[in-house]
Amino acid sequence: MNAYPVVLGVDIGGTYTKLGYVNREGKVLVHTSLPTEAQKPAEKFFTRLVGEAESLRASLPQASVLVGIGIGAPNANYYRGTIEQPPNLSWKYVDVVQTLRQWYAIPIALTNDANAAALGEMLFGTAQGMKHFIEITLGTGLGSGIVVNGDLLYGHDGFAGELGHTVVDPEGRMCGCGKKGCLEQYVSATGIKRTTEELLCSWTAPSLLRSIPIHQLTSKDVFEAACRGDELAKEVFERTGKYLGIKLADAIAHTSPEAIILFGGVAEAGVLLFEPTRRWMEAYLFPVFRNKVQLLPSKLPSGTAAILGAAALIWKELEKQQ
Amino acid sequence: MNAYPVVLGVDIGGTYTKLGYVNREGKVLVHTSLPTEAQKPAEKFFTRLVGEAESLRASLPQASVLVGIGIGAPNANYYRGTIEQPPNLSWKYVDVVQTLRQWYAIPIALTNDANAAALGEMLFGTAQGMKHFIEITLGTGLGSGIVVNGDLLYGHDGFAGELGHTVVDPEGRMCGCGKKGCLEQYVSATGIKRTTEELLCSWTAPSLLRSIPIHQLTSKDVFEAACRGDELAKEVFERTGKYLGIKLADAIAHTSPEAIILFGGVAEAGVLLFEPTRRWMEAYLFPVFRNKVQLLPSKLPSGTAAILGAAALIWKELEKQQ
Repeated sequence: MNAYPVVLGVDIGGTYTKLGYVNREGKVLVHTSLPTEAQKPAEKFFTRLVGEAESLRASLPQASVLVGIGIGAPNANYYRGTIEQPPNLSWKYVDVVQTLRQWYAIPIALTNDANAAALGEMLFGTAQGMKHFIEITLGTGLGSGIVVNGDLLYGHDGFAGELGHTVVDPEGRMCGCGKKGCLEQYVSATGIKRTTEELLCSWTAPSLLRSIPIHQLTSKDVFEAACRGDELAKEVFERTGKYLGIKLADAIAHTSPEAIILFGGVAEAGVLLFEPTRRWMEAYLFPVFRNKVQLLPSKLPSGTAAILGAAALIWKELEKQQ
Repeated sequence: MNAYPVVLGVDIGGTYTKLGYVNREGKVLVHTSLPTEAQKPAEKFFTRLVGEAESLRASLPQASVLVGIGIGAPNANYYRGTIEQPPNLSWKYVDVVQTLRQWYAIPIALTNDANAAALGEMLFGTAQGMKHFIEITLGTGLGSGIVVNGDLLYGHDGFAGELGHTVVDPEGRMCGCGKKGCLEQYVSATGIKRTTEELLCSWTAPSLLRSIPIHQLTSKDVFEAACRGDELAKEVFERTGKYLGIKLADAIAHTSPEAIILFGGVAEAGVLLFEPTRRWMEAYLFPVFRNKVQLLPSKLPSGTAAILGAAALIWKELEKQQ
C-alpha cells in the first residue's frame, strides 16, 4: 500500500493553537489543540507543537507521508515566513519557518489567518473554481484575504488585505490598532456589541437587551433578541450591514471580485446580516459593478476551518508546482 | 536601414482624441489630435481616426513598422476590447478592437485612461522597476490604475481600480454616477471647486476667491490664491488632502503597494496637495504599513502622457511575449 500524502495544518491563536492532518481532498483526518502560552518564549511553544504534531501523526489510521506544513497566524508574513508584532501574542518577531527547520526538511509556509481561510475556501469551500474573490472573516475582529487571478494578493510587503482597518468614520470609534473608525470596530462581534451599546444609550424604546448587564452582553445575545423580533437588536444588524455593505462596495471598486464570502461566527447570523449588507453594498456600488458580485456564506466547517485553511496553503503550492 | 518599430497610441476623450507614434524607449515621435464628435456614430469616428493615423505615420522621420495599436478610453474593457456606457460619449457600446480589425491585422488593445497612465508610468515614468503601485489621475474626475505583481489589476470583469467611486461620505455630494459621496466629487478639479463653494458659504473670513463669480471659479484660481497665502484657499487644499489621504490609506490596506503616484493637472499643485495628503494618509494607515509607502509625483510628460500610456499597453504585451 502506498503511503498517503498529508499536510499538517496549524492555526496559532492567542489562547489555543489548533493542529490537524489534512488530505488532498480537504478532509481533516485527525486534529487536536494545545494552549499557546504566548507569554513564554516562542521556542518553547514550537517544541511543544512539534511534540503534539508527531504524536497526532502516529494516530493516523493509515501509513502517511507528511508533504508540508501550513500555518495560519496573526500578523504572519508570507514572504518572510515570520510573525511580526502580533496583537495578541507577546512574541515580537518570530522566524517561524526557520524555527521549524530544526525538525522538518519539507515545504513550510505561513500566512495570516484570514488569508488561510481564503485559500481553504478556494480549494475546498464556496470559492472552488473562482479566480477573483474576497474572503471576510467575522469573529472578535474582521480579517480579509483577497484572491486575484487565482492567487492570494500579498502586495509589496506581504500585508495586503487588511480591510478590517479601512476607515468607516475618521472621527469614529477607537480601534486596538491605535487609529479611529476602523471597520472592525463596527463589523465584528466587538462591533455589534459597541453598536448595541450606542443604541441602548441613544434610543428610549424598550428592548430585551436592556435586562443584560452591558459587560456581559455578547453579539450572540443581540442575534437571539433580533430573532425574537426585538427592534433595537434588528437595528443593530441593519447598521452592521450598512457599515459592511458600503465598505464592500469600496473593496469591489478596488479589485473587482466575482464574489465576497463571509466566514465566521458573526456570519452565521445569516439573513439578518446578509440582507442589509447586500442592499447597502448594491446601493453604493459604481453602476458598472451592480448585480454582478455575489455575497455568499462560507462552506468551510466551522470547527476545523482554520486547520483546513492553513493546510490549503501547502496544497495550493504543491498544485502550482505540478 | 532596418524599419523602426513604433506603436500607435490613441487617447479617446469626450471632446478631442489624441494620437501619436511611440518608440520602445517611450519617445512620442509625432502626435496630433482630432475632434471626437461623439454625437455622431462610432463607425464614422474610427474611419476618421484611421485616416489621421495613416497621414501622421507618413510624416515619421524614418521608415517605421507599426507593431501595434494601444488605446485609452473612458469605460474601456480590456478583456472584451470594448467601450461600454462611457459617461461622456453618446456611444453606448463599441467593439473597438473588432472595428479596427477592418484596417489592421496587428495587436490592438484598449484599457481605460487611468490604467493606460499606470502602464505609461511603469514603463517610462516614476514607477519604472516597481511591481506594486497605484496610479491616481487627477483631472476633472479621479481615475486610478492598480498594478499588482507587475501587471494591471483588471479583476473578474475588467473594471478593477475605480477608486474615484469609493465612498468618502455616504450622505455626501451627489456624483455623476448616481451615487452620493464619491471620492472624485472631493478630490479632482471638480472636487476642489465644490469644497471651495462650501467654504465660501460656511466661512465668513475674507478671501481672494470671493471676487470671482462662482460659475467662473476654477481649481487653478484656488491654487493661485493658496500660493498667495489665502487662508480659505489653503484650507481647500488641506481638506482635499484629508479626503485623499484617508482613502489612500484604505487603498493601501487593500493591495499594499510600494508607492502611490499622483498624475494630472491637480497633482501639479505640488506641496500644497502632497503635504496634507501624506500627513492624513500616514495618520490613517494600519501601523504595519506606516512610513513604507511612497507618495510620488508622475514623471510622464503632461501633454503626451495619454498617448504614451496607451502605447505602453502594447509595448508591455510585446515585452511579455519575449
